[in-house]
Amino acid sequence: MHTVFYVSDGTAITAEVFGHAVLSQFPLAFEQITIPFVETLEKARQVRMRIDEQFRQTGVRPILFHTIVDHQVREEVLKAQASSHDFLNTFVSPLEHELGVKAEPRLHRTHGMENRKLYDDRIEAVNFALANDDGITTKEYDEADIILIGVSRCGKTPTSLYLALQFGIRAANYPFIEQDMGVLDLPAALKANRHKLFGLTIAPQRLHEIRNQRRANSRYSSLEQCEQELACVERLFRQEAIRFLDTSSHSVEEISAKILEATGLRRQLY
Amino acid sequence: MHTVFYVSDGTAITAEVFGHAVLSQFPLAFEQITIPFVETLEKARQVRMRIDEQFRQTGVRPILFHTIVDHQVREEVLKAQASSHDFLNTFVSPLEHELGVKAEPRLHRTHGMENRKLYDDRIEAVNFALANDDGITTKEYDEADIILIGVSRCGKTPTSLYLALQFGIRAANYPFIEQDMGVLDLPAALKANRHKLFGLTIAPQRLHEIRNQRRANSRYSSLEQCEQELACVERLFRQEAIRFLDTSSHSVEEISAKILEATGLRRQLY
Repeated sequence: MHTVFYVSDGTAITAEVFGHAVLSQFPLAFEQITIPFVETLEKARQVRMRIDEQFRQTGVRPILFHTIVDHQVREEVLKAQASSHDFLNTFVSPLEHELGVKAEPRLHRTHGMENRKLYDDRIEAVNFALANDDGITTKEYDEADIILIGVSRCGKTPTSLYLALQFGIRAANYPFIEQDMGVLDLPAALKANRHKLFGLTIAPQRLHEIRNQRRANSRYSSLEQCEQELACVERLFRQEAIRFLDTSSHSVEEISAKILEATGLRRQLY
Repeated sequence: MHTVFYVSDGTAITAEVFGHAVLSQFPLAFEQITIPFVETLEKARQVRMRIDEQFRQTGVRPILFHTIVDHQVREEVLKAQASSHDFLNTFVSPLEHELGVKAEPRLHRTHGMENRKLYDDRIEAVNFALANDDGITTKEYDEADIILIGVSRCGKTPTSLYLALQFGIRAANYPFIEQDMGVLDLPAALKANRHKLFGLTIAPQRLHEIRNQRRANSRYSSLEQCEQELACVERLFRQEAIRFLDTSSHSVEEISAKILEATGLRRQLY
């Protein structure tokens, strides 16, 4: 098995996310090792030795994905016997040419605190998602960018948090519980913000499995109950012309990206 | 101003995160437009026209960062008049050579649901973080991977959620409130899980600002109160030999990466 090293003088999150995308194109398993905050020559030397040691132990030349801004640190790491791929500089040179501007490498610009205001907005979005999770309150809906609605355990909470953390979007969520079902009407707080509503639904079998992990063999988790609730809520979505999405086979990243695409909400990049 | 397009047949999150890292090396502002889920030739044509239209309107050739698995769709998008950079294939070819294996491009492998078990673990970690936020309960600490401790508003909650969403780590957090301060001792539930404790602290002035946004001109937010609480908690961290980190100038990504580095907790990659 090949070993993949993600090495960075920052968090290494960019290298990981991107390297993972590249590797996912291959039908292989990899041993993956992340080494962040390699900011000194001494640390760079240790990394080099660790990579070489891995080569000795496994007999397979490791793969090295790196995003290292400092030139000297990078050169030291690159002495390692590895198949090295420079995620940053591969694209920086052609862009310098296109933009007619020299890059000004600086540490920690990617996941740092360069723009305090933007960062604070994002953390405020997380606080908003928590304060408005699961219908705790409906009083702040005027400040919401979006309000996710659906039955219990269809994916509202993780999606709200992801929208906040990744994109700085203020997402509230409201659960339809059994009592709401009979009425088949929108609560007043939702009606007043109808343009912000976005429905989530899920396959009954999948919901049944998820709820069973929470409360096994309960009425709440029974397939019949799941089917009833979902049929009822989907009817409501259609009746009220609320856009909705089936989350059954989608990750929280995919659900979030699809919501942004459907609503035109602007992603804030950090 | 240059316009940057992130185009993908998936969520485009990889393209965004990575492109943002590359662009952050330049001292320029960019207009950034993300177009996810470009899966058909028809959509590809629309994207091409949109990019060309942007060129016409601005007179500046746009930059195109793309991660498109399907060959035909990619070729269609690449007809756009843009400075194009292929984030995936730039590294796939040399890796094919190194690995001695042909890539098997498939859609949605990066942020999809390829591995349901891993995905469910991650969502469970989010549920765990929520159920164990802010000391709501201390009964599940045996199942925690880490327990973040510190005063109110020092960054515990966003960090717990980020650790869960990004890395699938089960992070609880416990706030020291004023009543705890006098005692200067660890609550029993924390003592029993001492090896999982990780402290967060923050500069008094920064805490003062953050709390003021929440409750302006209160005792809670006063600089004096912030100074007292922080001095008290840091004394406790030292007395009990608990590792801790100053979050003042760090983003939630940096705090999380530093915690993983310090504790050796294994990152689960998705």
